Order: sequence, then structure tokens, then C-alpha cells
Amino acid sequence: MPALHRDLEAETALAGQWFDHLRRHSKSRLGVTRASYGAGEQMAHDLMQGIGQTLGLEQRIDAAGNLYLTLPGRDRTLSVIMTGSHLDSVPEGGNYDGAAGVVAGMAMLARWRRAGRQPAHDITVMGVRAEELSWFPAPYIGSRAAFGLLEPDALDRCVRPDTGRTLAQHMAEAGFQPERIRAREKQLDAARIECFFELHIEQGPVLVRKGLPVGIVTGIRGNLRYRDCHVVGRYGHAGAEPRETRQDAVLAGVEFVSRLERLWLEHETAGTDLVATVGRFHTDTAVHTMTKIPGELWFSMDVRSEDNAVLLAIDRELRALAAEIGQRRGVTIDLGAFTNALPGPIDKDHRARLERLAAELAIPALPMASGAGHDSAVFGTLGIPTAMIFVRNEHGSHNPDEAMDLADFAQGLRLLAAAVEEIDGA
Amino acid sequence: MPALHRDLEAETALAGQWFDHLRRHSKSRLGVTRASYGAGEQMAHDLMQGIGQTLGLEQRIDAAGNLYLTLPGRDRTLSVIMTGSHLDSVPEGGNYDGAAGVVAGMAMLARWRRAGRQPAHDITVMGVRAEELSWFPAPYIGSRAAFGLLEPDALDRCVRPDTGRTLAQHMAEAGFQPERIRAREKQLDAARIECFFELHIEQGPVLVRKGLPVGIVTGIRGNLRYRDCHVVGRYGHAGAEPRETRQDAVLAGVEFVSRLERLWLEHETAGTDLVATVGRFHTDTAVHTMTKIPGELWFSMDVRSEDNAVLLAIDRELRALAAEIGQRRGVTIDLGAFTNALPGPIDKDHRARLERLAAELAIPALPMASGAGHDSAVFGTLGIPTAMIFVRNEHGSHNPDEAMDLADFAQGLRLLAAAVEEIDGA
Repeated sequence: MPALHRDLEAETALAGQWFDHLRRHSKSRLGVTRASYGAGEQMAHDLMQGIGQTLGLEQRIDAAGNLYLTLPGRDRTLSVIMTGSHLDSVPEGGNYDGAAGVVAGMAMLARWRRAGRQPAHDITVMGVRAEELSWFPAPYIGSRAAFGLLEPDALDRCVRPDTGRTLAQHMAEAGFQPERIRAREKQLDAARIECFFELHIEQGPVLVRKGLPVGIVTGIRGNLRYRDCHVVGRYGHAGAEPRETRQDAVLAGVEFVSRLERLWLEHETAGTDLVATVGRFHTDTAVHTMTKIPGELWFSMDVRSEDNAVLLAIDRELRALAAEIGQRRGVTIDLGAFTNALPGPIDKDHRARLERLAAELAIPALPMASGAGHDSAVFGTLGIPTAMIFVRNEHGSHNPDEAMDLADFAQGLRLLAAAVEEIDGA
Repeated sequence: MPALHRDLEAETALAGQWFDHLRRHSKSRLGVTRASYGAGEQMAHDLMQGIGQTLGLEQRIDAAGNLYLTLPGRDRTLSVIMTGSHLDSVPEGGNYDGAAGVVAGMAMLARWRRAGRQPAHDITVMGVRAEELSWFPAPYIGSRAAFGLLEPDALDRCVRPDTGRTLAQHMAEAGFQPERIRAREKQLDAARIECFFELHIEQGPVLVRKGLPVGIVTGIRGNLRYRDCHVVGRYGHAGAEPRETRQDAVLAGVEFVSRLERLWLEHETAGTDLVATVGRFHTDTAVHTMTKIPGELWFSMDVRSEDNAVLLAIDRELRALAAEIGQRRGVTIDLGAFTNALPGPIDKDHRARLERLAAELAIPALPMASGAGHDSAVFGTLGIPTAMIFVRNEHGSHNPDEAMDLADFAQGLRLLAAAVEEIDGA
């Protein structure tokens, strides 16, 4: 029996048409917009349902609106091989962030159908709802709702900025059952899932710069996030106040951030996965002026690593630094509340499988961390063997210039299809 | 003949009444407000003219509205001993910044009159117009106009924010002759001035913290001012972009400012007078967010020293640093336009005289740099032997909480009076 993944040309062409359809029907002013529980996301779900009908797949929509399209296996008692991703986008985003993973799953099932083959296991493609934080500020809404993990209060607390309506209202208006999600009713049984594979465009520039089409994810970075760090010193006269008595908030913040960068370099030298970002850093724009010693400063920190022990160690080091620098400089450095999202574990065996298959199929692939979060983190954290394939993408994601080459997508699809065939046949 | 400065109690009491008058007639919402060429400043000039009439002083008002009150000397061909300061205030400022120097001069002349003594030289108290930058953004308007040094375009370029009218319009409305200032007609002859002494409240906290009533100024710091430094890097995904390819504007700015602080410490260790302030330092509040690598940053720098050679050396070092850090981090650090205000020279002999007299009179006095600019800088730069006396002041200046003790003022007044007596008698 020929390996399906060796001939995916027709399905790659189909995928190209589906991408065109998605773009055409969710075009907005600058890019594409597929709001969570909005028209663009629904259009994408409708397209996938239509393809599912054409391919004669089983179809299920859960209480949160997640879509499951299943090619039934010969033995329905076996665990299910799952793949998929989300179908929403950020406002004025690109066409591929999320959608590429669902399109890849559907193209793979189309190949099985064209070959007339039936897998041993059920193979399910999941179209996940509401992954992008731009619409409702809670992470992984669709995939966590599927497992009964969404905090009930998120349904009322999260308000879509463009409509002013809550997540529960939007879910209900779109035809789903928020009350079942609120009751934490499980829509998916983790114990019945053999594995979850997610194909996703790379959101950074690594593959472009290395000239490689595909990445194999080693881990999904968790993060430490300090949204509102605040330095309070004392305003003073820029000319008349001597150095020793200044309580300069900017110089304190500058020292703190330079020490954070030094910590980062030390960890990097030690081979630890880590990135750190101070995205906001600002004096008070209403009060600051060239001739006044700055008395206040605000900044944010986002620190990510595949290893949560590293993150917790860094939190301790940052708190010690804040106290020491604050004391020495006569200011207070308050790091404020922080959140710690756990890293998403990647299954070692599936990762090794992907690396081996890439080598066998001559697909140039790079092992790399995922800096951004993905629905896969939810599956991995639940103990479901999870793996991710990245596809090269120009200009980053979350913007209209996001650009994935169909030839690169074809390589990622081939790797996904090869892995699923192997798992199913094992 | 008794030394006048040994008995100034009556004149100190008078000064207290004059300060009360000034405060009562320029009270505003929070503090006092004496706008340049506005009602509050004019009220102060009117008070000084009235006192001058009572004391029988010669009176002159120049084309810019500066007031000169002169106790005629025995030999009118001798050069003139001058003292004074400005009579405007910042909006919602304190009662003493500027006014203390004019009140001290008038109290000193009152003492000469009470003694019935005539000096050898003319002694002139000058009430300077428009020193505070809050009203018209050009430095030392009154004193520079007096010497024909005000750039003519400042008359039309400078607009008072609260009225929307130009400096020329305000000058004319207040009854003066802007066209003569525009023609750079000299109102004062530097060659005829023996010396200029300015008593002023200290605008910083040094005397308060040292517990000393009086400071003797060693030099008026000049400054380098970079109003709009701009770092341009590239925005990127906080999780997905590896360290080596980031072009992080904040980390570049942080390194630059920490290097500026290190330069400062090196100069301080070498005994160089220097202060540096980064009053504004901010990412783009419309675009920045916790999860985005910051692509742009703006900041200001204000660097001051008594020694302009130090300032020029620092400018060269900062430019080299900006180029080196920018190159290494893949960003541009553009320091933008800068201004270099020259330090105001203080006459060594007069400074030594003040130090000696303070010791003789048991006035605890600290030699110290003036961090802020003063009208004295204009006189000093013209080669007129210039000296300054600082009086202790709580809570800094340019705010309603500015607080000078009349007992401290009395010590400064005594020192001024002693110096003028000595110069006149020499």
C-alpha cells in the first residue's frame, strides 16, 4: 500500500483554494479579521463543515462551538488521533495563523478519502474556537472549554471590545450553550485521545532567517508576566539636586532592566531556554519634562521559558533585585501582580518521530521552542501526547503582512500526514 | 562710621512686609502667579517703584520694562554697583524665587538711607523682567534685552500660552517699546557696571540638608539639552523572536542611559562638577504592549556642569556611545538637536570676598554650584564681575510650597550689604 504522504499534490492545491476562500470571505480594511464567535470565525467553520460533508466525515459541534470532523477508524474503540488548530484571527491579522492547522488536517483527510483507505483509529480534525486574546481576554477559551477547564466567571468577565457583549452572550448568540460550559461539562475526554498534533505557522522569524521550511517544536514556553511594575521615587530640579540625594525613578528602572538583561544572558550562556521583553517602559507623559528628575516610572515584563523552574527562579531573583536597587536608590520598585502560565509539554517520542520522519523525507526541519502559546499547551498539560509542527512564515504573525508559502505548507503537511500514518499503523 | 550691615533688623522687618504684600497681591489658586509682562509681575514692579519713591531713589524703566532704582553715589562718573533679580514667577509658584533678590537690594538701600550715608559709587537695584521660561520660551528675556542681546525673532516667535499673544504684543501692551529691543538698542552699558550681585533662593535641597542658611555660588552650571532623543528598532513578538535577532529599542535605551550614569560617576570621582537627568523616557503609549518587543523609544537628556569643556567632552562621548550601541543592537539612537547654554562665570575675587565676609560675620555658608540658570549668567558672560548668594529654601522652587525663612534671608542680606559696603569703600 503506497504511503499517502508521498503524493499530496492534489490536496496541497485544494488547501490553496481553501486558503483563498478564507481570505476572500474575511478580508477587512488592512488584513483579515475573524473575530472569536464572530462572522469571520463562523465563515471558517462553515467552510470546514462543507468540506467535511463533501468528504463524508462525521461531524460534531460541542457546546462551546468547537468543530470536530472525524474520519471513522476500523476499530471505533481505539483512541482517537487528533489534529487541528483555531479558526479565529486577531483584528486585521493574517490568513494563516490558526487556519493553517485546520486546513492541513482537512487536506490530510482528503488524501485518505482519495486513496479510499480507512485508518485503524478515528482521525479527528478539530476547529478550535476563540484562541486569540484580542477578543476575549482569557487564554485558550475553546480548547479549555472543551475539557471543562474554562473558569465559569470568564463567561461574564470577558467582554469583546468591539461589541461590549460578554463571552456568554456571544456564545449563545452564535447558537451554542454557555450554561453547559459554565457547568464545566466536559465536551472531550482526554483519556480517549491518542495524541494531538498541531501544525501552525511560526510566529517569529527564526525559520525565515535560517532558510528552513519547517520547525519541530521542542516545548511551548510558559511565561511570567508582570503587567504593571511601578517605580516611585521623587520629582526634583534637574540642575539643583545633587546626585546623592536624588531619587530618580528612571535611573532605578534602567538599572533594574539592565540587570534583567544580564540575568537573561547568564541563563542563555548556561544553555537555558529564555526570552525576556520589557514592552512598556515609560515616565508619566502628563508630568515628565526635560528639566525635572523623574519621580515615577511604569513598565511591564514578559519572561518566557520552556522550563517553569527557571521562571520561578527568575521571579525570586527579580524580587531580590527590586528590593536591593530600591533600597540603594531611595525608590520603591513594586513588581505588582504577576501571572505564571505553565510551559506546555511536548511529547518526547512524538517529537523524535517528527525529527526522524523529516530526515527520512528530506524535509529540512529545525528543532525549536515555541515562544507563543498554542491550544497544544492545553492538550499537553492534560497529559495528552502532544506535538507541534511549525511552518515558515514571513513578517511574523498577527499582522496583515503574514506570508506563508504554499510550498512550505506542503512540507509541513507531508510531515503531519506521515506521522499520523505511522501512528495509526503502529 | 558704623558698618551698616551690623544692624539690619528694621530693614529685615520691612522686607517681611514687602514679601507679604507681594504674596497677598499675586495669590492664585494654589500658590502665587506673576506672569512675565502680566499683572502679577507689574504689581511687583509697582511695589518696588513705590519703595523707591519713599526712599528718594532715582528711577529708570528701560524699553523692555526692566526697573532700575539707584542710590546716587558721590562720584557719578564711577562705575555702578548693581544688584537685583527678576520679579516674575512660574504659574502657581512660590513667593521668593526672584523677588528675594530685589527685596534684598531695596532693604540694603533702605539701610543706607536710614544711616543717611551716601556711597561713593551709584548703587542700583534692578528688577528684571521675564526670567521664567514658563511664559515665553526664551531664556533671560529681560536681562538679555537690557544688553541688546535678545534675538529679534524671539519677540514674535515666543507666544504666552495663556494668552496666545506674542512677547512683542505683551511688551507693547504693558507700555514698553519692543521696537527698540528688536533694534537691539542697548539699555545698559556693561562697561559702566562695577559688579553684579544676585541674591536668590536655592532651588535645590542642599542647604536644607546640610543645615546651612546661605550658599556662595561657585559657578552657574551651563547645560547640554537633548530634547528629543529617539531610538528606532523593530517591533516583534515577545515570545517567538530569539535574542540575537531582536532590535529592542528599550534595551538599547536602557544600556545608553546606564552608560550615561557611569560617565557621570567617572566625572564625579574625578572631581568634575556634573549632573545628568533623563526626565522623559518612554515607549509609544499608543502602540506598546506587554507582549510586543518595543520598536521605538523617546527620551530627553539634560546634562549640566560649571565647565563647558566637560559638557562638550560628554557630548562627544554620548555620540560615540549612541553609534556603538546602535550598531551592536541593530537600532538607531538619534540624539537629535541639542542646545548648549554656556556656564555663567562667577568672579573669583568677589566669591572669595563673600567667603571671607561670611566667616568674619559668622554666617554659616556653603560654596556650591548653581544648578539652575539665573540672570547673573548674562552679566557674567559679558565679563561683568558677578557673584551670587543663595538662601536656604524648603521644598524646592517653582511650586507653592517653596518656603524661605526670614531669618535665613536676613543672613543673606547681611552678607550682600557687607560686600557692597566693602566694594564701595575700596
